[in-house]
Amino acid sequence: MQRYFIHTDITTNEFTLPTEVFHHAIKVMRNQVGAQLELVGPDQLVKVVELTAIEPEQAQAKLVETLTAKPELPVQVQIICGISKGDKTEKIVQKGTELGAAQFIFYNGARSVAQWNTKKAVKKVDRLQKIAQGAAEQSHRVVVPEVLYCQSLDEVLTAIETADYRTVAYEESAKQGETSQLAQIVQKIKAQLQAKPQAPCRLAAFFGPEGGFTPAEVQTLQAQQVVASGLGPRIMRAETAPLYLLAALSFGLELA
Amino acid sequence: MQRYFIHTDITTNEFTLPTEVFHHAIKVMRNQVGAQLELVGPDQLVKVVELTAIEPEQAQAKLVETLTAKPELPVQVQIICGISKGDKTEKIVQKGTELGAAQFIFYNGARSVAQWNTKKAVKKVDRLQKIAQGAAEQSHRVVVPEVLYCQSLDEVLTAIETADYRTVAYEESAKQGETSQLAQIVQKIKAQLQAKPQAPCRLAAFFGPEGGFTPAEVQTLQAQQVVASGLGPRIMRAETAPLYLLAALSFGLELA
Repeated sequence: MQRYFIHTDITTNEFTLPTEVFHHAIKVMRNQVGAQLELVGPDQLVKVVELTAIEPEQAQAKLVETLTAKPELPVQVQIICGISKGDKTEKIVQKGTELGAAQFIFYNGARSVAQWNTKKAVKKVDRLQKIAQGAAEQSHRVVVPEVLYCQSLDEVLTAIETADYRTVAYEESAKQGETSQLAQIVQKIKAQLQAKPQAPCRLAAFFGPEGGFTPAEVQTLQAQQVVASGLGPRIMRAETAPLYLLAALSFGLELA
Repeated sequence: MQRYFIHTDITTNEFTLPTEVFHHAIKVMRNQVGAQLELVGPDQLVKVVELTAIEPEQAQAKLVETLTAKPELPVQVQIICGISKGDKTEKIVQKGTELGAAQFIFYNGARSVAQWNTKKAVKKVDRLQKIAQGAAEQSHRVVVPEVLYCQSLDEVLTAIETADYRTVAYEESAKQGETSQLAQIVQKIKAQLQAKPQAPCRLAAFFGPEGGFTPAEVQTLQAQQVVASGLGPRIMRAETAPLYLLAALSFGLELA
């Protein structure tokens, strides 16, 4: 069933289909009376609704049921990536959304081959935010991850002030055989989620651009208590490492 | 350092650079005398070598050291995917190689939008094998995963006869909240690797094409004791699910 994110919660049993949904569901997808859709509002509840009347400029719908499935990763993960060239940022947002990321922050790394200026960043973030929404709909999530741009690593550090845990995927750590930090973080998150199941739990995870981090960048992060984690003994591309982290967190927290 | 896979092991301290390496390392990359390369032969050992003389049609090199790092996933994973359209098969091979897959098998699923005939399959497999080799070099692996094509699911079942464990990522299982099978498989693999560290341990993992499996295909697999595993509560695209599985196996076996 097609899922749509809407700006205002559905609070009545019969209602006018939100304008943003009307266009796609009726004009583009040509749904007919009787067709069912899923609408997700800011309350993160999935409402299954059925079309009851279609007029030229609007449509009426009724509530069928409210789903209770919880598709969100129990830890809110901020994926922080140095800007890479080509469509790599898009792939990170698309696949990272499928894998449960809560937020994406892109920054100009010292070794980023592509750098964004403020004007370019506005366009890019806008496009990436649309990709996040499409991927969130397709993967049946109830939250659209937010996409942010920071000019520098210092600016990122301000954006992650509320994070409970901070880690950086540093290639040198993996090369030196670091194999325990990520598992330790997963155990700490598990313990925190059991102790305070209602409180949000946040992890900020840093990834370099294609060229990796400079020693100065790693020093900046380490001075802020960002822990270097190895992600296994194979060298991954810049766009693969965030996907590994998200899948590992899902396995460690949702399945194991 | 650039890594090359070679067909014959290096067994002497001084030797002529293999022809396939000569072309890329000297003609394309323009390495000079004194430059170092990594060569990996069928023995899966990484030999660091240094160029000692460059002639128009060949080059001489000497052995510097043999590396002992073990970058291979401890379980040999056969990633079996229904053929999907566009560049999805290429992405699966590229990223799956970075994440440690041992073999890729592509088959014509009942719901595959794109189907390969034998002629097309030869071309495709050839191209995918080159992608696997490039990704294996870049991710510093010591084995190039093999790419195979099977016309049908029945043919696949013959190709995985030696697998110790068999699982299928079935969307319906995830929807029904199946959350324990993958973790159980990881525990069994761990126990086997501890009991028999020298013996190969193999996992065959099935994934549908974009449209998913038909009920008949799932029946065929279940009749062969292929266990349905949920990969978390979010719906993943056909090309994302194999990457989730490989990252989860790495986390469970190499880090946790």
